[in-house]
Amino acid sequence: MSTALVILAAGKGTRMNSDLPKVLHPIAHAPMLEHALSAGRALTPEHTIVVAGHGADYVRAMMADIDEEAKIVVQEEQLGTAHAVAQTRDALSDFDGDIVVLYGDTPFVSAETLQRMLAARQNADLVVLGFTAADPARYGRLVMDGDSLERIVEYKDATEAERAIDFCNSGLMAGNAAQMFALIDQVDSANASGEYYLTDLVELARAAGLRVTAVSCDESETLGINSRADLAEADRVFQQRKRADLMADGVTLMDPETVYLAFDTVIGRDTIIEPNVVFGPEVTVESGVFIRSFSHFEGCHISRGSKVGPYARLRPGAELAENTHIGNFVEIKNAEIAEGAKVNHLSYIGDASVGAETNIGAGTITCNYDGVMKHRTEIGARAFIGSNTMLVAPVRIGDEAMTATGAVVTKSVEDGALAIARAEQKNKPGRARKLMDMLRAKKARLSKGAE
Amino acid sequence: MSTALVILAAGKGTRMNSDLPKVLHPIAHAPMLEHALSAGRALTPEHTIVVAGHGADYVRAMMADIDEEAKIVVQEEQLGTAHAVAQTRDALSDFDGDIVVLYGDTPFVSAETLQRMLAARQNADLVVLGFTAADPARYGRLVMDGDSLERIVEYKDATEAERAIDFCNSGLMAGNAAQMFALIDQVDSANASGEYYLTDLVELARAAGLRVTAVSCDESETLGINSRADLAEADRVFQQRKRADLMADGVTLMDPETVYLAFDTVIGRDTIIEPNVVFGPEVTVESGVFIRSFSHFEGCHISRGSKVGPYARLRPGAELAENTHIGNFVEIKNAEIAEGAKVNHLSYIGDASVGAETNIGAGTITCNYDGVMKHRTEIGARAFIGSNTMLVAPVRIGDEAMTATGAVVTKSVEDGALAIARAEQKNKPGRARKLMDMLRAKKARLSKGAE
Amino acid sequence: MSTALVILAAGKGTRMNSDLPKVLHPIAHAPMLEHALSAGRALTPEHTIVVAGHGADYVRAMMADIDEEAKIVVQEEQLGTAHAVAQTRDALSDFDGDIVVLYGDTPFVSAETLQRMLAARQNADLVVLGFTAADPARYGRLVMDGDSLERIVEYKDATEAERAIDFCNSGLMAGNAAQMFALIDQVDSANASGEYYLTDLVELARAAGLRVTAVSCDESETLGINSRADLAEADRVFQQRKRADLMADGVTLMDPETVYLAFDTVIGRDTIIEPNVVFGPEVTVESGVFIRSFSHFEGCHISRGSKVGPYARLRPGAELAENTHIGNFVEIKNAEIAEGAKVNHLSYIGDASVGAETNIGAGTITCNYDGVMKHRTEIGARAFIGSNTMLVAPVRIGDEAMTATGAVVTKSVEDGALAIARAEQKNKPGRARKLMDMLRAKKARLSKGAE
Repeated sequence: MSTALVILAAGKGTRMNSDLPKVLHPIAHAPMLEHALSAGRALTPEHTIVVAGHGADYVRAMMADIDEEAKIVVQEEQLGTAHAVAQTRDALSDFDGDIVVLYGDTPFVSAETLQRMLAARQNADLVVLGFTAADPARYGRLVMDGDSLERIVEYKDATEAERAIDFCNSGLMAGNAAQMFALIDQVDSANASGEYYLTDLVELARAAGLRVTAVSCDESETLGINSRADLAEADRVFQQRKRADLMADGVTLMDPETVYLAFDTVIGRDTIIEPNVVFGPEVTVESGVFIRSFSHFEGCHISRGSKVGPYARLRPGAELAENTHIGNFVEIKNAEIAEGAKVNHLSYIGDASVGAETNIGAGTITCNYDGVMKHRTEIGARAFIGSNTMLVAPVRIGDEAMTATGAVVTKSVEDGALAIARAEQKNKPGRARKLMDMLRAKKARLSKGAE
Repeated sequence: MSTALVILAAGKGTRMNSDLPKVLHPIAHAPMLEHALSAGRALTPEHTIVVAGHGADYVRAMMADIDEEAKIVVQEEQLGTAHAVAQTRDALSDFDGDIVVLYGDTPFVSAETLQRMLAARQNADLVVLGFTAADPARYGRLVMDGDSLERIVEYKDATEAERAIDFCNSGLMAGNAAQMFALIDQVDSANASGEYYLTDLVELARAAGLRVTAVSCDESETLGINSRADLAEADRVFQQRKRADLMADGVTLMDPETVYLAFDTVIGRDTIIEPNVVFGPEVTVESGVFIRSFSHFEGCHISRGSKVGPYARLRPGAELAENTHIGNFVEIKNAEIAEGAKVNHLSYIGDASVGAETNIGAGTITCNYDGVMKHRTEIGARAFIGSNTMLVAPVRIGDEAMTATGAVVTKSVEDGALAIARAEQKNKPGRARKLMDMLRAKKARLSKGAE
Repeated sequence: MSTALVILAAGKGTRMNSDLPKVLHPIAHAPMLEHALSAGRALTPEHTIVVAGHGADYVRAMMADIDEEAKIVVQEEQLGTAHAVAQTRDALSDFDGDIVVLYGDTPFVSAETLQRMLAARQNADLVVLGFTAADPARYGRLVMDGDSLERIVEYKDATEAERAIDFCNSGLMAGNAAQMFALIDQVDSANASGEYYLTDLVELARAAGLRVTAVSCDESETLGINSRADLAEADRVFQQRKRADLMADGVTLMDPETVYLAFDTVIGRDTIIEPNVVFGPEVTVESGVFIRSFSHFEGCHISRGSKVGPYARLRPGAELAENTHIGNFVEIKNAEIAEGAKVNHLSYIGDASVGAETNIGAGTITCNYDGVMKHRTEIGARAFIGSNTMLVAPVRIGDEAMTATGAVVTKSVEDGALAIARAEQKNKPGRARKLMDMLRAKKARLSKGAE
């Protein structure tokens, strides 16, 4: 059976107090919409349709990055969830499979849960996702009769017996596209808020003699986000799971609560991570790496046996080969660091390649920007870059070449050659004492004048 | 009705195990005494009197910073709370309004609570602040009869019925100055510890036919601090509230528990803060700012649309205009960074101004200190400061001027000019290989000699 | 009575998912085995024997660092705890004191508890350590009759009445060596897993008419570690205790949860620690020190009145005298910083000494490595090192000497002398504007060509 994901993502999210549409606020560096989508991808859907509304242009732009095959349809007025699904009718006009309705602000539903919803479709026309709530107070209750979902009842309309039910409505739903659209046509807005509710499909389906059932998932999968505090809480939940997964896989997190992970962070076995490390998106770390405190990573790869940090910043395109050492106050961007190379102190290596076993001295800077364009620096193998070397790109330093301390290198250096650019040191006896005496006298005069 | 705040701040705080008087230990960068005072300020008091004792000189010095109109009176011997209030008699000799007694080690009482205490004075001569304790065990109980406070009874003196009361005494009190001083005259020290207790005023007032009542506040407002662990806990409570407030106002804290805020931190809507950021006092951040991890701020201002960090340190007097970029391992102190300017890597900009759209290269240092005095550096707009430029202040770099990589700039550079100060690069073919061979041979000789 | 510690450390720790033997995984920078040992040291044991198995070579290497007098015996096959203790028979052949059996993966047992076990030996032949479990489900129950331990019963074999017992078996045991070995000879492996269990000694001892008793400790002392999540939890428990101890001793931790401490961290009274500070092993801090955020310490000493950080990295051998200032983005390694000296910005000071009251300018680097060997830098008192000075070791800067900004210093500088090494600054009027125009034109041509 082919599947269409319909993700409702039109809400403003007033309580977010933001110019950005709610569903684009990120959890662990991925927009919450992407989290919601990622479970849906496991269904290998034929169509993915996002119903946008508030900030639809932002949503469109973000979706172009996340899933370029997804369609965006715009719900101009937010008239309820049934109305939102109705907006996908044109996009799904030739489609006769199943629709699965997800919510952009309910990011944690699992692929396994969605698969169980589709499996339940074999014996039911409409499938609703429910969960057993620890505190069911504000949720709609799912009234079951065996496997059959009799109806969804809101708390305010519920009898005492119904209020005792703790099986609650998540809002997620699956059914045949044509059937769902036909039912949606019958939904009216004769309710307090004047909206068209998707939950009404249950009653309409039963009235039409269709079979309706509910599938149950863990309450944590239905966590909804309405405020930045909710967002932070969702992030916390995500981090806890991800940390636990990494530890189970053989990664040591010395102080797990202080390691911030991205949704796609990959870390190998017997890698040790000191406290206070931040992972941005697209970071992969191999086995047996030692990552020290106060390191910050984005879009980079760290190979087996490397030692990184403390205070190492790896930016997108930083590729560390095996057994590299990246030390403190070092920034690496768009650069390959070959096996066994070391960049230990106070350096900026950007738009560059560094050869195997090369040592980059403290204070080295690749001067990659001329004010208009960026240029590359290439450094060979077993080279020795002296402290405070300025590598004015484009420039090449050969294998086994050296640069002298403090050299501004504007011309390439051949293999095995030494580049020097330095003014001669002159010592002026007694001059320091005289200078300080002068400065102190001047200061005394100035402060006297100021009185 | 005019008001006098009396803040009791004489205690040693033995369990703090400190040379600093207890009330000066800070919570979120403000002394706990200042937190206590800040609620009182909402009453626009005519007098603010701090009763100091242990470390009175420290208290006096600190209060000069916090509130220069506050008076300090010294309680030479710590003979109890009533004795402490008695020390303010001279300072309040001409005052006929209300006294509100606060405690320097009870920092979280709210302005609204104090206002309710004063409001309750309309129907009572003496008003005590109480709270409903989750675990009342060690507190004195407030025995009420309707609105009337019958008496305060210590746990050890309480009947079974009284012990069941969970409405407890916070110690805060409000009443007419003359009346309170008259009652204080009647307090004796005939008790186990030989001290004069302010709580005795309740019984004395009732004996004098005065009306006594109690006002209730949340227990969290009465949190008292006796140890560094209590201090850390109070700080934690403060941080949680402040973080929640910021999130409600539209600030994203990706991992709220790792963002440390000061009592006066101001942050605008749609500003995003990565994990691990520390705010010192006097920091204001406008809207739409992106603050990256491991940044540290004090006494600075960050304008709309700027990107700061990771590893950015903004010290007092750092003023960032709109859309500035401050990158990693950068320190800014006492410097204005104009709109769109960038300081991206490994730089120290102190006592300086940087013009709009100017780019400061990696490794740039304003050499502001000559060993005796500090001097200023002025950099114009659309300038390009090459990597590793040393700006020896006082010096001026003109608009659209450039400095070459590695230049030590001691003379000012006119608009549109280029400053160069560089030794010529010479490449010595084969010299690097020879040098390394020599060094390796030397090392081999040395280690042979060492055997 | 002389004592032999026997520490069982042969297990693989499959759930750690690691190449490193479980007992070597560190808690607060000490292998968990060392934590287990440290309590045992309080007994001043005559023998310390570690029974290794999986990864025995790693254990041997680590123990050489921790306690060079300890013996390692190898249990080739892991046939149970009784079999493990049996491996120590040869090592203890001449020993007639008490054996105390500890576990390498039970790191938190206290010295006081072990001392109570030995004290209990005065009235019993065999002493088992028990604890009252909050949730006893999976533990063996200790069935007592007064002071007498009747038997240890596993949950699956227990009667309803026995299951109600919450006094549980920790596995730790003490007894006379000869007697224990004699009992161990009688242990068989006729059980489900076919292993020889030390717990069987209880039944065998009673059958032999010996007196058996149990001593009780807090459940937290018996925390066992089987996974990286357990390891992280043990570390958390350790950190909480250590932080509480420091606060009680008069150290301010502004945000205790963000300060990571090592097992041996020592910090003096009235030292203040900002959020986000990491202590590695062998760090001592005196009184009245101010440690700022994002600092990272290992193997260093910080004397009274110093100010360190933010972003200060002190590596092994960093010795700060009183009232030193170490600022941001500064790395100090194997260097003595004398009283009142300052290294405030962006510097690397390694293999060096810095004299009293000396000021090290921003961007200073000790070039201590020539590609083959390390060399020392010596800087005198009251010297002034200009910004971006490169000190090419070996080199000496005299007392009251200065180096000019940007100097590469290869020759020593006498007391009071000034070293200069700088190319002359030349300003080229209009050249910057021309250069930028050229670069922009070139970029335009290139992007045109790319179309």
